[in-house]
Amino acid sequence: NGMAKNITPRAQDFSQWYLDVIRVAGLADYAPVRGCMVVRPTGYSIWEVIQKHFDEGFKETGHVNAYFPLLIPHSFLEKEAQHVEGFAPECAVVTHAGGEELEEPLVVRPTSETVIGHMYSKWVQSWRDLPLLINQWCSVMRWEKRPRLFLRTSEFLWQEGHTAHATRDEAMEETLTMLEVYRRIMVEELALPVVAGEKSEGERFPGADNTFTCEAMMSDKKALQAGTSHFLGQNFAKAFEIAFQDQDGQVQFAWTTSWGVSTRLIGALIMTHADDDGLVLPPHVAPVKVALLPISTDEERLASDLEPKARELVTALEARLGRRSVALDTQYHMRPGDRFFSHLQKGVPLRLELGEREWQEGRVRAVRRDTGEKIDLPWDRLAEEVPAILEQIQQNLYQRALEFRLAHTHDVSSFDQFRSTLEEKGGFLRGYFAGTREDEKAIKEATGATVRCFPLEDQSTGTCFYTGKPGARRALFAKAY
Amino acid sequence: NGMAKNITPRAQDFSQWYLDVIRVAGLADYAPVRGCMVVRPTGYSIWEVIQKHFDEGFKETGHVNAYFPLLIPHSFLEKEAQHVEGFAPECAVVTHAGGEELEEPLVVRPTSETVIGHMYSKWVQSWRDLPLLINQWCSVMRWEKRPRLFLRTSEFLWQEGHTAHATRDEAMEETLTMLEVYRRIMVEELALPVVAGEKSEGERFPGADNTFTCEAMMSDKKALQAGTSHFLGQNFAKAFEIAFQDQDGQVQFAWTTSWGVSTRLIGALIMTHADDDGLVLPPHVAPVKVALLPISTDEERLASDLEPKARELVTALEARLGRRSVALDTQYHMRPGDRFFSHLQKGVPLRLELGEREWQEGRVRAVRRDTGEKIDLPWDRLAEEVPAILEQIQQNLYQRALEFRLAHTHDVSSFDQFRSTLEEKGGFLRGYFAGTREDEKAIKEATGATVRCFPLEDQSTGTCFYTGKPGARRALFAKAY
Ligand SMILES: [Zn+2]
Ligand SMILES: [Zn+2]
Repeated sequence: NGMAKNITPRAQDFSQWYLDVIRVAGLADYAPVRGCMVVRPTGYSIWEVIQKHFDEGFKETGHVNAYFPLLIPHSFLEKEAQHVEGFAPECAVVTHAGGEELEEPLVVRPTSETVIGHMYSKWVQSWRDLPLLINQWCSVMRWEKRPRLFLRTSEFLWQEGHTAHATRDEAMEETLTMLEVYRRIMVEELALPVVAGEKSEGERFPGADNTFTCEAMMSDKKALQAGTSHFLGQNFAKAFEIAFQDQDGQVQFAWTTSWGVSTRLIGALIMTHADDDGLVLPPHVAPVKVALLPISTDEERLASDLEPKARELVTALEARLGRRSVALDTQYHMRPGDRFFSHLQKGVPLRLELGEREWQEGRVRAVRRDTGEKIDLPWDRLAEEVPAILEQIQQNLYQRALEFRLAHTHDVSSFDQFRSTLEEKGGFLRGYFAGTREDEKAIKEATGATVRCFPLEDQSTGTCFYTGKPGARRALFAKAY
Repeated sequence: NGMAKNITPRAQDFSQWYLDVIRVAGLADYAPVRGCMVVRPTGYSIWEVIQKHFDEGFKETGHVNAYFPLLIPHSFLEKEAQHVEGFAPECAVVTHAGGEELEEPLVVRPTSETVIGHMYSKWVQSWRDLPLLINQWCSVMRWEKRPRLFLRTSEFLWQEGHTAHATRDEAMEETLTMLEVYRRIMVEELALPVVAGEKSEGERFPGADNTFTCEAMMSDKKALQAGTSHFLGQNFAKAFEIAFQDQDGQVQFAWTTSWGVSTRLIGALIMTHADDDGLVLPPHVAPVKVALLPISTDEERLASDLEPKARELVTALEARLGRRSVALDTQYHMRPGDRFFSHLQKGVPLRLELGEREWQEGRVRAVRRDTGEKIDLPWDRLAEEVPAILEQIQQNLYQRALEFRLAHTHDVSSFDQFRSTLEEKGGFLRGYFAGTREDEKAIKEATGATVRCFPLEDQSTGTCFYTGKPGARRALFAKAY
């Protein structure tokens, strides 16, 4: 097919394939400022569905949204030593405003722990003011020398949750609760079979006592960090004086957490589910779940029969699937094959064709995006069958990705085996590990692989493949985005 | 009541009353960077409902959302002469990023006509690519020397719609369609009786051929511009080369529009509906529509009878009113009067009290926020009656504000009358006007009042009260925020 040729085959050049999928689906574009991104309407509509799922997950667990300012005094970053070390080099700095030079330079937020810590110190006085459970949806800026759409751009869209608690235990519970909200939504809605786990010391958020992560395997077998939840201890509470009087009248510092997911998830969806024909979207995150195409060379027939029937079916389907979830394709100036392709490339889960023959027989022909399977569906069964087929597609995409991850996860028990497995097979390497931060660094320099996490579901211990120490926890290593 | 004292009476000091209402409702706070604002959870939850109404209005009329970058090359502003003159003095400028000085300074977007124009020029080639109907929700930055929460802050949240069309007529139709979407939502959902009209030359958006506006009257009789829709002609299309091949193969410039509403609408809600007890929210934009308070000094009774019953009623009400729209008040450590006040101050439209006596009689006592009226409601009629009462509150608030506007709108037929009416009565002055831009300026300097708009609904003409010219259009003048 002519239109497929505008996508480089994945096996030939994965990076180019990724960019081609984004381009032909119209998901994003580079902005005039180097490293920045425009999220185009098709890409943004996916982000809106992703937002809806996560926002509901946050609100169900008692969180509320707010908005904190874009600009942060540079001095705020400096109040937490590791934080400034991690973020200052990546900051964009405002030095002039309103026609004057500023007394103190302001950074465009790279993340908001500092300014939110400052506000929390004003809002929290007593134990009755806790917990504070606040999230914000916004963009952040981290200057990128080697940008890559959705994965690494100087500006990206995300949410950042920031909570403050009276006790260590409660803050740790919150950290893990939000990790689980992330894991569940990634699995159930984005069909990403992520592994939830704890980060190693070398991979922690700057300023955190502990970082937890959801790690996904992309279809080139590399890992992608899909979301993180940080236990910040009292580091930011002390730096910004978030203190409260407890029930006994004693003044204590609060315990804080932060957690975030970003438009990077769209990159994860592409690199997990897409194929050589373009995007493939799990129905739960597809803004358009079904495309319905009246097809005929007879214009009168289209106008008098096929299109009116199609509109009727759209209405019936949308009553089940939600408003604007079914696209009626009236691109009659295009050849049927090109019309099919425009939906394939955008990842629409199900295509329904209503041609002359289908019209005669009172049915449509359904074509699944994930498998290409064709199914004949009578009109009167459509509203019932289509949701069921969409659910099958959702499950199939998840299952396929899970099997891929399992097939490309390899156990290692020595560093020699680690190196050879990584070189020959790639994927996730699973082994007991008790190395130091320096050991992590040495492994990364020698192989390019990093500790992705210590999976929470695997509490077994054994001999460290790198140091030989006993009682080591199970870790996953991989090359990562 | 003790808690009411923390609000300055409106009649005593309107400005301080406004800030007090914001503070006690917890709507917003000043940020550490001068002129910037934190939108606190209660304020942000109102913004979320406002967003939902407008976003639906945009999508119903065929628009889609996208995201364009925060940072814009300074040179982009300069491409449209009036635009740079209007916005450059208010810009925040990024001069350093990633540890280096930038070759070209970047401005934090004050509005996005320029960068969107740049992208549109890449996306539009043929008439088939038009119209482009895109909106974005984001924050913008316009440096403010005299900030005022929600009304004038250096950073604020808004939406900006940007569309491109093949013909002048279509672009003008779009401009007016969006004005009408704004007007309808302000009237029906925010209960703001706005006047839709055309701006005078002196009040146009920098770079627009024509600006339309929705003007509201605040309870101090000053005007507030609640939303604007701009017909940009071909100004930005020419500056950014948004050109297309038409159906005859001729290359033409597109015609563009832009339109926006912002968190300023929260300021409009406060200054239209709030009173000396605090915020008053129209039910259609109230995130919490009902507060339900079990009241007893007997803790056991609360635990065994009142609270379980209250939870049951919350569930029944939320099935009608939507999730999280009913707040169960369990602030038992507070006195009933203080509990009532906490909801009054936040503007919750309806309070339901479930005390000992109500329990005995199988009912609740409902108290309307707008009138203070008390209504006894049996439990089994609650799910039916409450939505109806909320609708009455919505209508009452609109009607009250409309009557206020009409009562404070005065006809003037000479400049002497204009001056004396403005001084003695204030409010909106309605008169035929055909003055020049210089006349507008002179009137403003002499009186502080500006042309708010030429109302669309009033197409009558008459003799200009200022110049004496015949055939002048009817205009509304007022002092404005
Ligand atoms: Zn779902
Ligand atoms: Zn409504």
